[in-house]
Amino acid sequence: MTNTTDTTASATAGKATGLTPDEVESQLIDTVIASFAGTSDARLKELLTSLVTHLHGFIRDVRLTEEEWNQAINFLTAVGHITDDRRQEFILLSDVLGASMQTINVSNTPYKDATEATVFGPFFVDDAPQIDNGGDIAGGGVGQPAWVEGVVRDTDGNPVPGARIEVWEADEEGLYDVQHDDDRVYGRAFLFSEDDGSFRFWGLTPTPYPIPDDGPVGALLKATSRSPMRASHLHFMVTAPGLRTLVTHIFVTGDELLATDSVFGVKESLVKDFEQQPAGTPTPDGRDLGDATWSRARFDIVLAPEGV
Amino acid sequence: MTNTTDTTASATAGKATGLTPDEVESQLIDTVIASFAGTSDARLKELLTSLVTHLHGFIRDVRLTEEEWNQAINFLTAVGHITDDRRQEFILLSDVLGASMQTINVSNTPYKDATEATVFGPFFVDDAPQIDNGGDIAGGGVGQPAWVEGVVRDTDGNPVPGARIEVWEADEEGLYDVQHDDDRVYGRAFLFSEDDGSFRFWGLTPTPYPIPDDGPVGALLKATSRSPMRASHLHFMVTAPGLRTLVTHIFVTGDELLATDSVFGVKESLVKDFEQQPAGTPTPDGRDLGDATWSRARFDIVLAPEGV
Ligand SMILES: [Fe+2]
Ligand SMILES: [Fe+2]
Repeated sequence: MTNTTDTTASATAGKATGLTPDEVESQLIDTVIASFAGTSDARLKELLTSLVTHLHGFIRDVRLTEEEWNQAINFLTAVGHITDDRRQEFILLSDVLGASMQTINVSNTPYKDATEATVFGPFFVDDAPQIDNGGDIAGGGVGQPAWVEGVVRDTDGNPVPGARIEVWEADEEGLYDVQHDDDRVYGRAFLFSEDDGSFRFWGLTPTPYPIPDDGPVGALLKATSRSPMRASHLHFMVTAPGLRTLVTHIFVTGDELLATDSVFGVKESLVKDFEQQPAGTPTPDGRDLGDATWSRARFDIVLAPEGV
Repeated sequence: MTNTTDTTASATAGKATGLTPDEVESQLIDTVIASFAGTSDARLKELLTSLVTHLHGFIRDVRLTEEEWNQAINFLTAVGHITDDRRQEFILLSDVLGASMQTINVSNTPYKDATEATVFGPFFVDDAPQIDNGGDIAGGGVGQPAWVEGVVRDTDGNPVPGARIEVWEADEEGLYDVQHDDDRVYGRAFLFSEDDGSFRFWGLTPTPYPIPDDGPVGALLKATSRSPMRASHLHFMVTAPGLRTLVTHIFVTGDELLATDSVFGVKESLVKDFEQQPAGTPTPDGRDLGDATWSRARFDIVLAPEGV
């Protein structure tokens, strides 16, 4: 090819392949998917093929502009840069788009009367202190004391002894311990169910809190006139040999935020009464709360078999 | 509700809403989309609605597991943490998934014989030195000298004088200047087309290079047995008042990487002859290259009107 014919080739750029724009776009998807042909992990290949299909589907459906693509890159960069050991903005992003909840939906197939799962959230840490049954998870965290009790059973109704129950929650200021800059530990603990499957502990009556909204995810919520507030809740993760791990919350009957939870985590079956107890009402374990009010809630837990 | 009836409610969790899993999943998508109802920016609302639809579609299609979701969060976190002023791993990720190229496809509608666009890439910086026509962009970068010339025209065939032409490329080691830890500048410059639309400069004959593959995107390429190599290319960005900005590359006829470019950037119309010139061949501007070989290429540029 000479320089002269090269000029001609350039001038017919749009016709060089003879494809319509629609065909060019489809062909690119095929080419990208084909590039994963050598992937030895079949599941990874399946994931990437579907990801590419949906990602390109999005770009084509909205006719994404280069400026919008730039904004998306900058947004993700900001999400990456605010993320550290204590702040997980990618989880927040997944949460506010409902992606976390949808993952819970598709990966926890309903099984008989097994307790429903909800989002994990970014505030679990795995070095919480252990308490005995009847102990207090508050650890100095401020809020109204709440007595929480229940029984862990399998889907045949048998009690599950020795189930490890992790519980964690925000204080009434709306903050988890890990959101502070020091190493304080409050509002979290783990305990084990007893031989009859029962468990009980003192915690705090759940109160609403905003997800951290001083970062890019907060900016997204503002741009869409959405509230960062989460419905009041208490987190549970329950594990026992041979049974499916349950990650869930319990919510509070009557909480006005139930319908607009910022991470779409509410399920009707997880809304529980936290019955208010006037000051002076005798406590189940004889604890003297002086002139403080308290609440009590019951949460019976049913674990599905592993692998269903 | 008493504790006793609460127990019953919990035990019938799966039936609380009376919905099938498929209905629960669909309803969540509807709920998330509805949460954007108050978005004042109609385009943002459109983008988020489509994003949520495709993101949830992906999660449902592959039945994403919580472990896979965790891996995705960790992957994105790693992409965020390696990204800084000089390294843009999110662009690399977009590139290797073909998302960058698809954005170029949908946002640059073919128009008459306008030159085709391709990916921007992560290595442009906007403080390149200016050169006169016939100047050298190499700036000390190592490689075979290449004489590049052409004419900028509009789609009616009129020459475009004063078009700003930014050019940038890697050296023959496969690195752009910004990939070094110091502030060296090489392989980039801008110049303006002359009154007759013509331009010419000395650069380097493009050579292949790997996209940075020591980060999470490189790990993804390895896991999928894909090469990080880009087909040899020279970047252009051409701007002129009233005309659509063109971001493109030219590639090299005969390069064996044309079919497997790691970012899917190759378009047939952008592949150009870089004609090899034996040592001693007189240069177009009389430059004395001693006993060095050199190449010459022609790239005529056609700019679409703005807004088409
Ligand atoms: Fe929470
Ligand atoms: Fe490049």
